[in-house]
Order: sequence, then C-alpha cells, then structure tokens
Amino acid sequence: MNTNEKLLIIPLGGLGEIGKNMTVFRYGDDIIVIDSGLAFPEEDMLGIDLVIPDMTYLIENKDKIKAVVLTHGHEDHIGSLFYLLRQVDVPVYGSPLTLGLVEGRLKEYDVSDRRLIPVAPGDSIKLGQFEVGFIRVNHSISDALAISLKTPIGTIVHTGDFKIDQTPVDGKMIDIHKFAELGNQGVLVLLSDSTNAERAGYTKSERTVSEVLDEYFASTKGRIILTTFASNVSRLQQAINSAITYGRKVALLGRSMVTVVNKAAELGYMDIPEGVLIGVEEINRYPDNQILILTTGSQGEPMAALSRLASKNHRSLELTPGDTVLIAATPIPGNERSVGRTIDALMRLGVNVVYERGSGIHVSGHGSQEELKLILNLTRPRYLIPVHGEHRMLKQHGRLANEIGIPKENVFIGENGHVFEFTAETGRFAGKVASGKIFVDGLGVGDVGNIVIRDRRQLSQDGVLIVVVTLDKAKGCILDGPDIVSRGFVYVRDSDALIDEARNIVKGVLERFENQPITEWAPLKSGIREALTKYLFSKTGRRPMILPIIMDL
Amino acid sequence: MNTNEKLLIIPLGGLGEIGKNMTVFRYGDDIIVIDSGLAFPEEDMLGIDLVIPDMTYLIENKDKIKAVVLTHGHEDHIGSLFYLLRQVDVPVYGSPLTLGLVEGRLKEYDVSDRRLIPVAPGDSIKLGQFEVGFIRVNHSISDALAISLKTPIGTIVHTGDFKIDQTPVDGKMIDIHKFAELGNQGVLVLLSDSTNAERAGYTKSERTVSEVLDEYFASTKGRIILTTFASNVSRLQQAINSAITYGRKVALLGRSMVTVVNKAAELGYMDIPEGVLIGVEEINRYPDNQILILTTGSQGEPMAALSRLASKNHRSLELTPGDTVLIAATPIPGNERSVGRTIDALMRLGVNVVYERGSGIHVSGHGSQEELKLILNLTRPRYLIPVHGEHRMLKQHGRLANEIGIPKENVFIGENGHVFEFTAETGRFAGKVASGKIFVDGLGVGDVGNIVIRDRRQLSQDGVLIVVVTLDKAKGCILDGPDIVSRGFVYVRDSDALIDEARNIVKGVLERFENQPITEWAPLKSGIREALTKYLFSKTGRRPMILPIIMDL
Repeated sequence: MNTNEKLLIIPLGGLGEIGKNMTVFRYGDDIIVIDSGLAFPEEDMLGIDLVIPDMTYLIENKDKIKAVVLTHGHEDHIGSLFYLLRQVDVPVYGSPLTLGLVEGRLKEYDVSDRRLIPVAPGDSIKLGQFEVGFIRVNHSISDALAISLKTPIGTIVHTGDFKIDQTPVDGKMIDIHKFAELGNQGVLVLLSDSTNAERAGYTKSERTVSEVLDEYFASTKGRIILTTFASNVSRLQQAINSAITYGRKVALLGRSMVTVVNKAAELGYMDIPEGVLIGVEEINRYPDNQILILTTGSQGEPMAALSRLASKNHRSLELTPGDTVLIAATPIPGNERSVGRTIDALMRLGVNVVYERGSGIHVSGHGSQEELKLILNLTRPRYLIPVHGEHRMLKQHGRLANEIGIPKENVFIGENGHVFEFTAETGRFAGKVASGKIFVDGLGVGDVGNIVIRDRRQLSQDGVLIVVVTLDKAKGCILDGPDIVSRGFVYVRDSDALIDEARNIVKGVLERFENQPITEWAPLKSGIREALTKYLFSKTGRRPMILPIIMDL
Repeated sequence: MNTNEKLLIIPLGGLGEIGKNMTVFRYGDDIIVIDSGLAFPEEDMLGIDLVIPDMTYLIENKDKIKAVVLTHGHEDHIGSLFYLLRQVDVPVYGSPLTLGLVEGRLKEYDVSDRRLIPVAPGDSIKLGQFEVGFIRVNHSISDALAISLKTPIGTIVHTGDFKIDQTPVDGKMIDIHKFAELGNQGVLVLLSDSTNAERAGYTKSERTVSEVLDEYFASTKGRIILTTFASNVSRLQQAINSAITYGRKVALLGRSMVTVVNKAAELGYMDIPEGVLIGVEEINRYPDNQILILTTGSQGEPMAALSRLASKNHRSLELTPGDTVLIAATPIPGNERSVGRTIDALMRLGVNVVYERGSGIHVSGHGSQEELKLILNLTRPRYLIPVHGEHRMLKQHGRLANEIGIPKENVFIGENGHVFEFTAETGRFAGKVASGKIFVDGLGVGDVGNIVIRDRRQLSQDGVLIVVVTLDKAKGCILDGPDIVSRGFVYVRDSDALIDEARNIVKGVLERFENQPITEWAPLKSGIREALTKYLFSKTGRRPMILPIIMDL
C-alpha cells in the first residue's frame, strides 16, 4: 500500500451550474469517474441540443480509468455517458434502474456493447486502489445511491443527489447508519449536493404527496390528467395507487412516460396490477371519472404531450372542460414562462388546472439546509467540496458547513476543471485541467463553438442579406447583378424600394473598382459591406449579416 | 343626455399577458383610452425590441378619441404612446411624474409637440360625454392614479396598477374613501389589476423596506451597491434616507437611474439634500463606508450597469471583496436565469450579495388577494373585468369576485380585442376588433411579422448555406461555381470535406439540367435544395436554411 500517493479530486461538471454532473477521482494511476451527465442548453446557445462536459482529461488518461460509477438515472448524471464510452471502454456500475435507463440511451448512440454491472446498496467493490461502496439515498427517482471511496490515505463520500425522506413511498429510507459509520471511521472529503442549499428547514417527504393526491382523486368528478417528470417513479406509483383506490384506469401519454414506466415495472420498481393500464385509444370506453392519464410535459416543453393537449394538437386525445390537470412539478429555472403558457392554454380550454406551489402535489427531491447539515454532522468530514449547484448555492452550502464547525479553509468552493489535491492530512487547490461546455448539435459533438454560435446570434437578431455579382475579372466590369437576397431582415414583398436602393449602393461601390483588373476581392467585399451596413441601419435600425459573394469570369 | 347609447369597453392589451396595457372606452361617438403600454419581447420573438398593441381600431376611429389618460409612468402603461400619438393628435392626461417620464420618450420619437395636461388626484374633467375622475393609488412608482369614468348610463372604475399601502413612504395613501364613495353611488363596471391575484393575504408596505435597509446600512462596513427598478422612486428615496442617516454619499449608475432621479427630484417627488449626490468619478475620494451606489440592472439585463460591474466590464468602477450588493427586486418571470448569473458573477468577485426573497429589501407594488377583495367590496361593481395579468391570474381574480358575491355571469374573463357592451342594466360580450402583438424592430413598427420571425428562428437553429452558380442560360452549362458559403452551420475551417461533397451534389443536380435552354429556375433551385438538405442532414443532423442563387449570362 502506497500512502505517499496524492488523491486528486477533479470536478468536470456540476460546479457553478445545474447539470452535467461529473467528478473524477484519481489516486496514483487509478481513476474512478462518478456520473457523466448532460445539461440542457441555455437560451443563448442557439440551435444546441445538449451540453456535455469537456472530457479531455479523461481521454488523455483513458488507460487509468477503472470504472464509471453512477449515482442515479437522471439525465444530468447519465446523459453524456454515451460520449465517454465511445472513446473509452470501461465498465459502468450502477443500480438496476439506473442501468436500465442507461441501456436505452447507449443503444441510441451505438455503444451498447459496454459492460453494465448492477450493484446494490451495501455492496463494496475493489477497483484499483479504490474500494467503492454504495449507499442508499432518497431522491426523486428510485434506486439512487451515494458513493464511498476508500483509499489508502482516507475515505471520500459523494452523496450524489439526495434528500432524507423518513417516510419514503417505497419504504427504503436513506442509509443514515452507513453515513454515521463512515463518520465514525473518519471521512477525509465529503462531496455533497447543494441544489437546495438556499432553502431553510427540511424538504417534505414524498409520502405527503400521497395524501394530497387522494384528496384530489376523492373530490374530482371528471378525468384526471397528471404530469410529472417521467423518471419520478415513486410519484407515478402514488398516482397509480390513488387511481386504484378510486377506481380509475391509467393511460400513459408521451414517449418517455411509456419507456420509464415499462422499464420500472419490468425491474420491479413499480407495482401495477394487471388490468390497470389501458391504451390511449381505450380512454373513451370508460366514464370520465374512471380515467387517470399520466403525461409528460411538466416543464411546458413545446413538443411534449401536455403542451400538445393544451394547444389542441394531440393526435389521439382532446381535453374538455370537465377535465382536471394536476401539475405535480415546479418549473426548473428558465421554464417559468413556458409552464405559465401551458397552464393558460389549458385554462382557456376550460380545463381545471391545479398548479400552485402550495397545492402539495409536488415536493423537491433534494435535501434542504437541515438535511445538508445532518449529512455533514453524520460524516464529520475534514474537507467539504459542495457540488451540484450554481456558485451561490455552493457558497451557501459552505456557510452551513462553517456553522456546524468546519473551518472556512477546509471548504473548497470550486469551478469545473479545478484540481483539489489531498494527503491524509492536507488539502489544497493544485491547478486546473481542461474544462468547459461541449455543445452537441445534431450528430456533431464539439464542432459547434463560439464562432458558429456568434453567427447564429447575429442571424437570429436581424437576419441575413446576400449580395451576388458576376464580374469580368480582367476588365473589372459587371456581367450580371448585383442580385440581393435577404431572409429574416425585412418582409421582402414590402421592401422593394429599400432593396432597389441597396442595389444602387452596391453598384456605386463597384464603380469605384471599375475598368481596372481586380487582383484582390477583400477591399471590394468590405467596401460593399460597409456601405450597405450604414445604409440599412439608417433606414431600418437593423444590422443584418451582410454576405457579398463575387463570381468572376 | 342620451341614455340609449351603449358603453363599449375594449381591452387592446394586458389581458392574458403581463404588459402593453391599453383599454378603450367608447360611449356613442366619444372614445377615451386608458394607458398605452409596451411589452418586452418573449424569447421566441427573435430580434424584436418591443411589442406594442394593435391599434387599428383606434386609428380607424381617430376622430372620436377625446384623450389618452395615463394611470402611471411605467413602460407597460406609457411605452407605446409614441406610436399612437404619431397617428392621432389628442391630449394626454396624467400626473406630473407620469408626464415627466412620457416627455422624454416622446422626444426620442419626434412627437414632442403633443399636449400633455397634468392632473391631480381629486380632479374631474369633462371629455365628451365622459366625466373623468382621478383617484390616488399606491404602486411601485409615485403619483399613480386610478380612473373613474362617469357616463350617462353608469360609472366605470379602472384601478390601474395598485396596492393598498397603509403606511406609504410619501405619506400619500390610496384614496379608499373615494372608492367607497363611488361604491355608494353605484359602479357599473370595475376593471382591476390582477397581477397578484394568485397571492394570498396582503402585500407588505413599502415602508417595511426602510427598516430592513437601515439594518443593512448599520451593519455594513464596505461600500453598498443597491439595485432596484429606476422608476421605484420611493425605494430610491428610502435608500437615500438610509444613506444620509449612516453618513454615506450617493452615486447614480446607469442611464435610466440618472434620468429618473433627476426628473423625480426636479418635480419634487424626491427629497435629496444638497451635497448628498456625488459623481461616479468622485467615489474613490471617500472611504468605502461612506458610499452608496444606486444602479440599474436588477433584472440581470446584460448591458445594464450591474451586469457590467459583475463581469468587470464597467468603464469607471470596479467592485472588490469588501463591497455589498443589495438586490431590491425580484426577477420578472423569464429573467430568473439572467439574475442568477449576475448574482453568481458578483459572488465570484468575492462581493457579498443580498438577494433572497426573504431578505425584506423588496416588496411588490401590486395588491394581493385581500386588497383585490377590499376594492371589490368598496366599489361593489355590478360587473368585473379583471385586467393586467396572464389568463390564470384573471381567472383567479374572477374567483375572488365570486367569493365576495359577484355572480359568475357578471365577471368577464376576456382576451385582447374583445368588445364588452354595457347598458345601465346589462353587459355582454359583443364581438371582436383587430388585436394582437405588433413588433417594433429598430425603426420599423409592424413590418416584421411571422414570416421574418420564422426565418430568423431557422437561421438561429442551424444557420444558412448559400449556393451560387453562374450559368449560361441558353446552353444550360456552368460558367462559374458552384460556390458555397455558410454561416452558423458548421465551423468552416474544419469542414472542407463536407463542403466539397456538397459542391459535388450541386453539380450532380445541375448536370440533370445541362445542355438544354433553361426556361424556369424554380425546379433547378428546389432540386438543389432537396438534394443538399438530405445530404447535410445525414452528415450533421442539422437543417440549415439553403439558399440557391443562380446568375445567368
């Protein structure tokens, strides 16, 4: 055993942001990766489908990677695994539901031959010099795990996403005894979920949703349409339980709802008695008060089933004024407007919509301040690295740690790519590795960067105006054109005068270059660009992208 | 007096949306317009600067308009006045601060010769068959008014934006006696602010902010930077009062902050003793604990002063770890992410940031449910038209009215453009007029519509690819090209092979048309478009806008 080695902890995602969680642990020549998630693009990342972490460090050190260990099956923890596994062939450890959800994704991306190894809470596996332990936690998806990593110089605990649910729906409470035991043995570094570090108190138990749902089911006469994240298996189970109690059949709407419920039922994470599920096409065979529809779209996603229902655009179902929609989710920051629009559209149909925060049909999957402090007190780590959160949440988590007695210098508020180096006694910031946001756009990973995005931004604001002219290169005279084509700039049919004058301005520029052989196009093109930019801005207050194209014969 | 006339109420903005408030009141041949506001563009309105109401109805009836009456000086109530006044020359009534703010805007738009007539609470003016009364209300800007319109068949009350502040900072409480008096005399229709119809209880008094500010000023050692809406004159006054109490000089940052404070002080709405205000360049002459900076940027607007400070991009000021930033505002829906980013950036500079909802340095300017019910109970209207709010807020306001005894059939939940027709005894929905969102983009008003926006959307997602080829029209052969230019699609330097192959595909299409005189370009162009779309999607998963341009000689 080499206890002179240093332990490096390198978060590649999830710090200073919500999403694309990924952390690298290196001891000597052994690397363990915890989670490989994605983030959804922000509004200024035009045309981007997904955002994944920069994995340069892992690819450069691919021979050292012993395994990827997954905490749970949410996209922000598993969604970039396909990309990592394309380049490195390493085993993936996770709980059965997590791996079940991973499997589907890997098939889509043609890397389905990788080894997926199921583990259970309490398991312990030796991977290089790491002894990896799996600890049950509660979260808004079943089968979530925290990870312990024992190394020769000390133990690391990574909570993953968690809450402390003392009355969980599936009866499987977070293993607080294990956290206590690890604390007694000594924890060198704790990495802990900061998502709700700004929220005082305790997060409510998922079970409290059950009672609220039962009340709605008891008092509602028409059809009930419930939307939540498809991966929230416990929430779906509770809705199905209420449906059974009150004699309703259950139909599933939306691709991910169907996928997750089938996978969860197949693996035994949901208990759905025979005859409860019906097809969407069967809904009309039952009276309204015998129907529950579980649907995607809780974030107001324009293409999801609920949005289609709200805009009367769904191919097989139409909502009517007797229906009640229960929105069992809160908008993720950035989605408030789209969720609001969906609610308004539903209400315009005369549908009854239950959506208020206070309605009790949603609780968070992340622990609040008292829970974060409890995990800190149970594990008593020497060092804390707050993870999973915007910078202000990490800072708030750090303050909580200070309050329970961890000194400021032992809390590391980091950025993605920071390297934290530990010995058995010390911890320090030790430089940086490559990090950042890699854009996935269509089939391309990383080929769209700042230049392309900058162009898209200009195009999105004022459109494009293309000037084409065919010149006789030798004589410098115009053979054809200038022709002007624009898109996204002005409504072309109403803009003849503007475009005619623009054409004259281009001719004026060309005259300056006439009757001489043209050796370089650049001055001509920039002359056209400048003259047009000035003219168009004076007339319209807009700055379209101007593209002069010169053909020569 | 003709009491056989019908009263028409036509909201042209503000229903089913936040912003661009505007309501038309017509009795016989007399029209009064209350407010003429703008809305800020939603995220899918690419390149749009402002959104204003469709005013076709007013322009068609311009000779009947007696006046525009303004409730207060916020942009969502005055921001489209310039456009209305460009086409109709009618007087504008409002309180002095409101008109002071209007004046500046009209100058920008070259309609500064219109008659602006100041009124005071309690005033009453005869305009055609309308007797217009002005009633003081409380709001997050000084000098806000509700409007009463007496007609031969009954009285209308329009609250404007309001809250009931029983301890207002300027000592001028909403005139609840006037509302009571109108209620006693009989109100036919009430139009009332629905912004906070979803919030239970009472909105806190602006004065409560004072005490909280004093606490921060007492305990803060470094510079204090406070941001709020520039138009919230009372909030700014309180901050300045705290600064005076604790011996701090006050500097103003951001164009609108300077404009509003100067205008408000000039008109006597703010009391700033000599020697308190200093220039930004003087800040460094004072110790940190003697400085208060009031700045714009409370919504995380990227170009506002606070965002520039956060990104170390401000030309004359730099923040340091000893500074404290107080964010005395909550994010407007849609701005959560940009506000979050600003807070995170400030924290990364080591600045102390106070921003939590619970911090008490912000209260809403709109009345909550108890206040809405109180106005309903005071005015006892026969009919209610909830205004100013998303559809769900209007509905919630309607439910409150039902609770206090107004029957459902007497509450009109409308849409912009709906015509509500009243007699002394009856009210009904009576058709629609033109309505909608008119886009302002640069200098153009209404010239950018769905086609231009749709093109911008496509350009923003996957960019543009232009194919230019010069043909001999008679022989059908290629003289030059095809040349391919793309922007916002792929990173051009890394895409030689892709573009080369695209060029070959275009040549292939052209060959099909070779050696024959070309009479029509359309089949050739659509052939190029289809072949390229298919090829590019198969290689990149993207669908750029493809623009074939053919030059012929």
